[in-house]
Amino acid sequence: MSKYYSKRNIDFLLYEVFDATALTTLDYYNHQDKETFDLVLFAIDQLAEKHLYPYLTEMDRKAPYLENGQVKVHPQMRRLMKEYGDGGWISADASMAHGGQQLPFMITSCFQFITGAANYSASVYPFLSSGSARLITHFGSEELKAQFVQKMYDGVWQGTMAMTEPDAGSSLGDISTSAEPIDGKEGTYKIKGQKIFISAGDHDGVDNVVHLMLARVKGAAEGSKGISLFVVPQQRITADGSLEFNDVITSGLFHKMGYKGCPIVQLAMGESDDCHGYLLGKENHGLLYMFQMMNEARIAVGLSAVSIASAAYYASLAYAHERPQGRKLSGKKTKHQVPIIEHADVKRMLLFQKAVTEGAHALLMQCALYADYMKAGTAEEQKYYGALLNLLTPAAKSYPSEMGILTTSAAVQVLGGAGYCDDFPIEQYYREMRIHTIHEGTTAIHGLDLLGRKVMGDQGAVLKVLIGEMLGLIKSIRGENQIYTHAKTLENLIGEVQTVTLHLGKVAAKEGKEVLLSDATLYLEMFGIFVVAWQWLKQAAVASEKLAEGLSKEEADFYQGKIFTTKYFFEYEVPKTKGLIQRLMSEDRLTLDVAKEFIN
Amino acid sequence: MSKYYSKRNIDFLLYEVFDATALTTLDYYNHQDKETFDLVLFAIDQLAEKHLYPYLTEMDRKAPYLENGQVKVHPQMRRLMKEYGDGGWISADASMAHGGQQLPFMITSCFQFITGAANYSASVYPFLSSGSARLITHFGSEELKAQFVQKMYDGVWQGTMAMTEPDAGSSLGDISTSAEPIDGKEGTYKIKGQKIFISAGDHDGVDNVVHLMLARVKGAAEGSKGISLFVVPQQRITADGSLEFNDVITSGLFHKMGYKGCPIVQLAMGESDDCHGYLLGKENHGLLYMFQMMNEARIAVGLSAVSIASAAYYASLAYAHERPQGRKLSGKKTKHQVPIIEHADVKRMLLFQKAVTEGAHALLMQCALYADYMKAGTAEEQKYYGALLNLLTPAAKSYPSEMGILTTSAAVQVLGGAGYCDDFPIEQYYREMRIHTIHEGTTAIHGLDLLGRKVMGDQGAVLKVLIGEMLGLIKSIRGENQIYTHAKTLENLIGEVQTVTLHLGKVAAKEGKEVLLSDATLYLEMFGIFVVAWQWLKQAAVASEKLAEGLSKEEADFYQGKIFTTKYFFEYEVPKTKGLIQRLMSEDRLTLDVAKEFIN
Repeated sequence: MSKYYSKRNIDFLLYEVFDATALTTLDYYNHQDKETFDLVLFAIDQLAEKHLYPYLTEMDRKAPYLENGQVKVHPQMRRLMKEYGDGGWISADASMAHGGQQLPFMITSCFQFITGAANYSASVYPFLSSGSARLITHFGSEELKAQFVQKMYDGVWQGTMAMTEPDAGSSLGDISTSAEPIDGKEGTYKIKGQKIFISAGDHDGVDNVVHLMLARVKGAAEGSKGISLFVVPQQRITADGSLEFNDVITSGLFHKMGYKGCPIVQLAMGESDDCHGYLLGKENHGLLYMFQMMNEARIAVGLSAVSIASAAYYASLAYAHERPQGRKLSGKKTKHQVPIIEHADVKRMLLFQKAVTEGAHALLMQCALYADYMKAGTAEEQKYYGALLNLLTPAAKSYPSEMGILTTSAAVQVLGGAGYCDDFPIEQYYREMRIHTIHEGTTAIHGLDLLGRKVMGDQGAVLKVLIGEMLGLIKSIRGENQIYTHAKTLENLIGEVQTVTLHLGKVAAKEGKEVLLSDATLYLEMFGIFVVAWQWLKQAAVASEKLAEGLSKEEADFYQGKIFTTKYFFEYEVPKTKGLIQRLMSEDRLTLDVAKEFIN
Repeated sequence: MSKYYSKRNIDFLLYEVFDATALTTLDYYNHQDKETFDLVLFAIDQLAEKHLYPYLTEMDRKAPYLENGQVKVHPQMRRLMKEYGDGGWISADASMAHGGQQLPFMITSCFQFITGAANYSASVYPFLSSGSARLITHFGSEELKAQFVQKMYDGVWQGTMAMTEPDAGSSLGDISTSAEPIDGKEGTYKIKGQKIFISAGDHDGVDNVVHLMLARVKGAAEGSKGISLFVVPQQRITADGSLEFNDVITSGLFHKMGYKGCPIVQLAMGESDDCHGYLLGKENHGLLYMFQMMNEARIAVGLSAVSIASAAYYASLAYAHERPQGRKLSGKKTKHQVPIIEHADVKRMLLFQKAVTEGAHALLMQCALYADYMKAGTAEEQKYYGALLNLLTPAAKSYPSEMGILTTSAAVQVLGGAGYCDDFPIEQYYREMRIHTIHEGTTAIHGLDLLGRKVMGDQGAVLKVLIGEMLGLIKSIRGENQIYTHAKTLENLIGEVQTVTLHLGKVAAKEGKEVLLSDATLYLEMFGIFVVAWQWLKQAAVASEKLAEGLSKEEADFYQGKIFTTKYFFEYEVPKTKGLIQRLMSEDRLTLDVAKEFIN
C-alpha cells in the first residue's frame, strides 16, 4: 500500500494535542463520541484508498475536455460523486436540522486532508458542493433549500462558488455580472455576464451544476457594497419539476499546470437573455454572506496544501529508504552503497518536509478546534475563539501554501532525476501544490488582511490574546531540558514579534496605510513561522510527556520523531525570522519609492 | 515582439561591468574586436527570434516519442540543428586549430543565455554537441577527431555526455558499464551496460548520435579510479565510410515535468554483444577528462537557469504593466483599476526576479571572464583566475538553479490564476526551471564540493583571494552615499563569512568531515547570496558613475533600475544570510543524530 498520510499523526493531533473528544460534551456535538469519530476516520481511509488514490495519476494524464459545449471528466468522477453522496460526506458538516451529520469541523477537516492526500483534484468537488449548499441553507428561502440542497448533498448536482470575472479577481468589488429583477417573479433575476476560473463549473459527473454567483443588481452601488449573491443553476427547475436549460454556457476550459482532474471553466450567462438567478438573502449582502464562509474555505485550502505536502513527503521518504546511492562520509568505506536516507542532507530535506507538513497541520487543527467552539461553544467561547480563528486564518491558509511549494520541491530533490519524471507521482504533487498561493485569496491579499485588518484593526488586541495562549504553554514547560530551550526561543520570538508590530503601528500612524502594508507579505511570512513554532512546541511538550511512559519501539519512534522535528523547526526554520524582522524594521521604502520605469 | 531577455543588460555586463573587449588584447582572441562581438550577438538574437522562440510552446506540447525504437522530436529540430551547424554555433568556442571560431567564453555564454531564454529545450542540443566535440578534440586521436568532430560541428550528428546509470547518479564511481579490449583493434573495446537520463541521447533531428561514455575496462580498479572515457556512436563508421548499427539501443524515453522538447533516454549497449567504443586518451582517466569540462558545463547550467528566469521575469513584467486590478491603498480612490505594477507587493515580486536574474547573470559572466583568462592569459593569470573560477563554480551553478525555482514561482504569482494556466508560457518556465538543481550535480553535491574541497581543501586560501577582490571593489567606493552603505554591508558580511568558515574549520578538526559537511547545502546558500551581493555592488558602482553623466531618460531609467535592484538585494536578500549563519554556527548535530526511524 502506498502511504500518503499518517493515521498515527491524525490520532496524535485529534486526541493527544487537541482534545477532540471534549467537543462531544458540547450540546451541539453530544450525539457523538470518540467511537463515532474513529469510525468516520476509518471510512474516510477506505474511501480514499479505494476510490481516490487509484485514480491519482490517470486523472492527471486524462484531463477534462470540452465536447459539444460540455465538460467531460474522468468516468470515475460520476462513481465518486455517488460515493460522496451516499456516504454523507457532502453533508457531513451541515446541521442535523438541515439534513446533515453535524460532525465537528475537526473531523471533517480529516476528510479534506485524507482525500486531498490521496487525490487532490478529486477531493475538491465535494468541498465545493458542501460550501455552496451551506450558503443556501444559511441564507436561502425554504423554497430554494427544498429545490437545491438535497441534490447537492446526494452528489447528484454539483455546487460551485462563482466569484472571479475577467476583470475582477483579487479586486472582487469590480465584478460586473448584472442581475435584473423579473417582474412578477419575486426573488428571480435575469443574470448577464462572464465568470472565469470556476472550479468544477461544468462536468458530466453530475446531472446539474448549481452556481453560487456574485452579481450586481442593476442600479446598485459601485464597489463591494453593491454585490448580491444568487443561486444560478446550469439547468433550472420548471413548474413540473423537470430541468430546462438556464442559459449558462461553458465558454471555455482552462488548461492548468496541475490539479488537472478538476475542470476550471469560463461561463457565459444570459447570452440568449434567458438566465435566471435566485437571490440569496438580501440584495447587496453578497460579499458579507460569502465572507462568513471564508475562514472555513481558507482553512480547507491550507488543509489541501498540507495534504499534498504529506503525500509528497511519504513518497520521498519511501524512496529515501529504498534507493542506494553513495557512501557515508566518515568511517570505513562500505563496499555497497547506502540508502540515501543515511546522508545528512537527505535527512535535512525529509525533516524539512515533516516539519512544515505536521507543523502546519497542527495549526490547521488548532483552527478547526477554534471553529468548532466558535460554532458550538458558549457566547464567551464563540467570541474568544472566533477572534483567534480570524487572526490565525491568513497564516493557516498561506503558510502551508507557500511552504508547500518548497516542501514538494524538496521531495523532487530527494529523488533527483527520477523526481523530475512521471514514473513517480512527485512531479505531479509539485505541479498541484502551486495553485494554493493563488486561489481563495493570493498570499499578498492575506498579508494585507493579517497586518491591516487582523493585527492593526484592533491595535493588536487579538494578537495579545494569541500571545497569552503561547505564554500559557511556555509556562507549563518545566525542567532545564531541550523542550525548555525551545520554549525560551519562542518566548524571545514573541518579544521580537511584539517589537516589530509596535514599530509598524508607529509607521502606520506616521506614514499611513500604504507604507504600513508595503511589506505585509513579509509580515505574514514571519507570522507563519511564529505560529507554527508555537504548534511544534505544543506537540513536543506532549511527546516529551509520553516518552516518559513505557512505550513500544514503534510508539517511542513516533514521539522521538516529534522531538527531533521540533528541534529541526527551531534550528532551521525559526532563524529565518531574523532576516524578515531586519527588513520589517527597516526605514527603507523601496517598493513604494521605485518608479515602475526602473523595473526594466 | 515578446521580450525574453535584455540586450541592454548584456551590453552592460559585457562592456561596462566586465571589460570583454580587453580579451581581444590577448593573443588567443586578438583576431576579434568589439565589432565582431556585436555582430555575433546580433546573429544570436536573430536565430533565437526566428528559429527558437516561435517553437517554445509547441515543443512542450508535442513532446518527443519513441517509435520503432527511435525517438522522434519536433520537426523544427532538424532545421535548427542545421542552423546551429551552418552558423558555426556548435564550434563557436573551439579553437581555430580545431576548426572552430575561437570565440571567448564570455561571448558563447551569451549564446547559451539568449537561446536558453528563447527556448530552453532547443538550446540544449548544440551545447551537448559542443561539449562532447571538445572532449574529442582535447583527448582523442587524430583518427577519432577526423571521424567525428566535423559532423558534430555541422549539426549533422548529435553529441552527448553518457554518464548516469540506474545505480550510479550522484555516485559516479559506481558505474558498471563495462569495456573489453577487442583483440587486434587497438583502442576499440566492446561496451556492455545501461545508461539513463541521457539528454538528446537519440533523436531524428540528426543522422547519428555520438555518446561520450564513461565505462570501466574489465579488471580496472573499483570506484572512480577505474573509469575510462569512450566514444560510443549509435552507428559506427565502416571501412568504406558508411554507417552501420553499433548495438546501442534506445530502451526507454523518460517523461519529464518540463524541458520536454529535448528527449532524455535510457540506452542499452551491447545487447547483441556488438557495441564498439573507442577509448579517449588513456584508460582510467575518464573522470579526470570529464571533470576538466565540468566548470564550463556547470556554468552553462547556471546560464540556462538564469535564461529561464529572465524569460519568466519579462513575461510577468509585461503582464504587470497591462493588467488592471485593484486600486492604490492611499490617496483618492480612482474610478478605474490601476495596472498591478502599481502595487508594492507586485513590485517586490518583480524586483526579486530582477535581483536574482541579473545578479546571478553577472556572477556567471564573472566566471566566464575568469574562464577566458584561465584559457588565454599568462601562466600567472591562468592560476589566479582558475582558482577563483573553481571556487565560484558551485555557487554559479546552484544559486540561479535554486533561486530560479522561487523567481519563476514569483512570476506565476504575479499573474495569479492566469499564471497557472497554459495561455501564458510562465507555467512552462516554472516546470522547466525545476531540472537545474538536479542535473550536472545536485545542489547537495555542490555544497560538499564548495565547503569540503574548494574552501577547506586549501584552508581557505582561495576564499581569501576572493575576499581580496571584494575588498578592492569596496575600497574603490567613496562618498557617504547609498552605494557606500551597501559596500559597508558587504564588508560586514565578509567578516561574518570569515567567522563562519573559521568556525567550521575548527569543527572539521575536532569532529571530522561528516560533521563539517552536514550543513554544506546551507553554507552554499549563504555563499551564493554573498557572491551575488558582491556582483550587485559592482553593478551599482558602474551605474552610479554613469548616472553622474548626462543621459537620455531611457538610459537613466536603466541605471536607476540597477541602483534600486541593488538596494532590493541588500534590503531583502542579504538579510537571509542571518538565519543561515545562525544555524551554521550552531553546536547542534541534528541531521547526524536523528535515527532514520524517527523520520516517520
